[in-house]
Amino acid sequence: MAQKSMETIVSLAKHRGFVFPGSEIYGGLANTWDYGPLGVELKNNIKKAWWQKFVQESEYNVGLDAAILMNPRTWVASGHVGNFNDPMIDCKSCKARHRADKLIEEASLEKTGKEIIVDGMSFDQMKAKMEELSVTCPECGKNDFTDIRQFNLMFKTFQGVTESSSNEIYLRPETAQGIFVNFKNVQRSMRKRTPFGIAQIGKSFRNEITPGNFTFRTREFEQMELEFFCKPGEDLQWQEYWKEFCKNWLLNLGMKEDSMRLRDHEEDELSHYSNATTDIEFRFPFGWGELWGIADRTDYDLKQHMEHSGEDFTYIDPISNERYVPYCIEPSLGADRVTLAFLCDAYDEEELEGGDSRTVLRFHPALAPFKAAVLPLSKKLGDEAEQVWAELRKSFPVDYDESQSIGKRYRRQDEIGTPFCITYDFDSKEDGQVTVRHRDSMEQTRMPISDVKAYIEKHLQF
Amino acid sequence: MAQKSMETIVSLAKHRGFVFPGSEIYGGLANTWDYGPLGVELKNNIKKAWWQKFVQESEYNVGLDAAILMNPRTWVASGHVGNFNDPMIDCKSCKARHRADKLIEEASLEKTGKEIIVDGMSFDQMKAKMEELSVTCPECGKNDFTDIRQFNLMFKTFQGVTESSSNEIYLRPETAQGIFVNFKNVQRSMRKRTPFGIAQIGKSFRNEITPGNFTFRTREFEQMELEFFCKPGEDLQWQEYWKEFCKNWLLNLGMKEDSMRLRDHEEDELSHYSNATTDIEFRFPFGWGELWGIADRTDYDLKQHMEHSGEDFTYIDPISNERYVPYCIEPSLGADRVTLAFLCDAYDEEELEGGDSRTVLRFHPALAPFKAAVLPLSKKLGDEAEQVWAELRKSFPVDYDESQSIGKRYRRQDEIGTPFCITYDFDSKEDGQVTVRHRDSMEQTRMPISDVKAYIEKHLQF
Repeated sequence: MAQKSMETIVSLAKHRGFVFPGSEIYGGLANTWDYGPLGVELKNNIKKAWWQKFVQESEYNVGLDAAILMNPRTWVASGHVGNFNDPMIDCKSCKARHRADKLIEEASLEKTGKEIIVDGMSFDQMKAKMEELSVTCPECGKNDFTDIRQFNLMFKTFQGVTESSSNEIYLRPETAQGIFVNFKNVQRSMRKRTPFGIAQIGKSFRNEITPGNFTFRTREFEQMELEFFCKPGEDLQWQEYWKEFCKNWLLNLGMKEDSMRLRDHEEDELSHYSNATTDIEFRFPFGWGELWGIADRTDYDLKQHMEHSGEDFTYIDPISNERYVPYCIEPSLGADRVTLAFLCDAYDEEELEGGDSRTVLRFHPALAPFKAAVLPLSKKLGDEAEQVWAELRKSFPVDYDESQSIGKRYRRQDEIGTPFCITYDFDSKEDGQVTVRHRDSMEQTRMPISDVKAYIEKHLQF
Repeated sequence: MAQKSMETIVSLAKHRGFVFPGSEIYGGLANTWDYGPLGVELKNNIKKAWWQKFVQESEYNVGLDAAILMNPRTWVASGHVGNFNDPMIDCKSCKARHRADKLIEEASLEKTGKEIIVDGMSFDQMKAKMEELSVTCPECGKNDFTDIRQFNLMFKTFQGVTESSSNEIYLRPETAQGIFVNFKNVQRSMRKRTPFGIAQIGKSFRNEITPGNFTFRTREFEQMELEFFCKPGEDLQWQEYWKEFCKNWLLNLGMKEDSMRLRDHEEDELSHYSNATTDIEFRFPFGWGELWGIADRTDYDLKQHMEHSGEDFTYIDPISNERYVPYCIEPSLGADRVTLAFLCDAYDEEELEGGDSRTVLRFHPALAPFKAAVLPLSKKLGDEAEQVWAELRKSFPVDYDESQSIGKRYRRQDEIGTPFCITYDFDSKEDGQVTVRHRDSMEQTRMPISDVKAYIEKHLQF
């Protein structure tokens, strides 16, 4: 097993064009990141794979792409204006700002070895717990804090030509509400019957007090959310269905089973409106982290919007004539987070014969940024090899590399996860065959050039 | 030719699930729009087609996905903090707010029949021109205006836990600057040599004073931008190259040649740093509108960032050892706008024999939301037809419809632009054949079920 550290992965990500620090030439901006040429392909492949299984191949679901800027009454109804807060605390000594809940969780784990659940504690209870645990400031080591205060995590901006409170709007903190407000528009225009789902991919923004761990927690992030509407009473079986579906999606894309674990929320951890919630967690180099939450949200969201908008979201079953507000299962996944998970999971350092070693990203071919690389054995074969390259990249992304030894070129492709290297040699001109070298086994297969496309496409299935 | 009005298109878009008014249940939010199940497929197909030709198949270009939130010094360097303003004017009588330049342009066209170029006029010159043309308020008809003032179009927000000016950041008004600041990161990590380009798709935000015309001008919008870097002196020929490339991309995706026109900017219309700019304009139902700008921006942007960041963007040619800051060609396209253009261009109302008529969206199959619809002739054939549906949607999006007469179902598919209807009838069970009906010609072809997938895929090429 490879020793994976975040430092190694962040460094490879930068130098091989996966992820660059955001606004780097200006000293960066907090924890922002830009996806480079390979990162955008990887992330797009993940988004495509999600859309493929959750929308295109689904008999139940359709897609949506709602605006980031929404009428602010949406966020009153959803509870974000009132309740989307972090408990914030300042160190009086060094002025560092912290999340009180995180300080308590870390101190508890360190001092008692036990995980503690802070959700549901009042500010007074948190303050008392901090004193009990003798929490000190992680920045300066002092124990001199202000009181705990609410900090709302929504980014505010002003739309229109005056900066008055009447023009104050928010950057959406989740894509889900764009789905709920469109429930009737989608159901009617697509003539859907329950059970059916609405899926969406898009950016959300949360003004986190403590973003960090590379792209794991960023203030600007992309979500892939499904809201699946069903008949009340059938919700628990659908929550089970989507839990399995999500887990299998990860497994089918090559995520290792022992890199993930499913955790059902305990009764006292559940939101008051939720009947069941399961987290799929991934083992990142910095520890287990939440990847996917599959929540049974009952009819909470639709009813909140009915109350605040006056719209009627009652569904009438066309066969039984039953009337009900549908229950909703929400599998919610962070696109950046699952991209990081696949990147970490794929990373490997392998010892080879003769004391040599290589770094290899063992992506499923469907996720690999380049599906293949065309490598002429000599620059003299450039013209012919470029023709192979031009033909193949009509079907999928293909790299081309003619500099340095073939061994070095194989290593470079291993390091960016290219599953197939196609070597064009002097015989190729004569016999119309090329050598296809497999990233994982390093085995080589000789085959006609005309077979290569279909051979690779077969491996892209998942 | 069909009578196309925006009202008809907006109404079809809403009722058939292409585009819904944003936050509609709360009375909307200014000019925001949500893409419904068919709209998101259409727009995604356009984005995919752009990425296919501008990145995947290109021997020059690679992709990028930079963050929306950038270090604010970016926008000082780019000139957006200083110069990204609209001339704003208020009607003292009814308090309506207008863009002075738009008032002048409209009044000039109406009163003198001549187009006027306001770019480059001072505020005093604009005010004088308004008086000369006796401009009145379009809302109330009065002629009683305030002075003209600057209005910066960038959305502001605060990142971090205090709302101080030191935390003030902007939502990016264009994706281009995310490319320029990453010039060196991309060039180095991908070992690119000029000429090469960096392509990006992403959301941008402009606090327009007067958004409107459906999705033509919205405050939140998506861009598809390419920054193509070349040797100084070769810029004009590359500007020509990309102009042709962009035009052909539209034509190959079925846009009618007489729906578009190319307009080269006159000397006095060019930005001070630009060597040449061409606009591709589209004939919308409300008139000609800019679709795609192909600008030769010389080395202006890279040099601005060199000056403000201290970073050196000099490129050294590995063969000739020449040193230069590359020139840049920028083809910049609005994803929402080109989606609207394809929608308008595809819209048709056709008189049929017998006095009947139909509405049909004549999308290129590559752009159509559903590539096919499976229609069982009778509900009794549902099980078998659903198997055909399940098999086909592994390859592309396919609709399924078993309610009402086959004729009504054809009309519904015509109206959403589905190029092929696959009718499963009682013979299909026996002979394994289905009837494939073509949207545009309404002709029908009988073929084996096993041939349908390849038959349709052939038509998706562009």
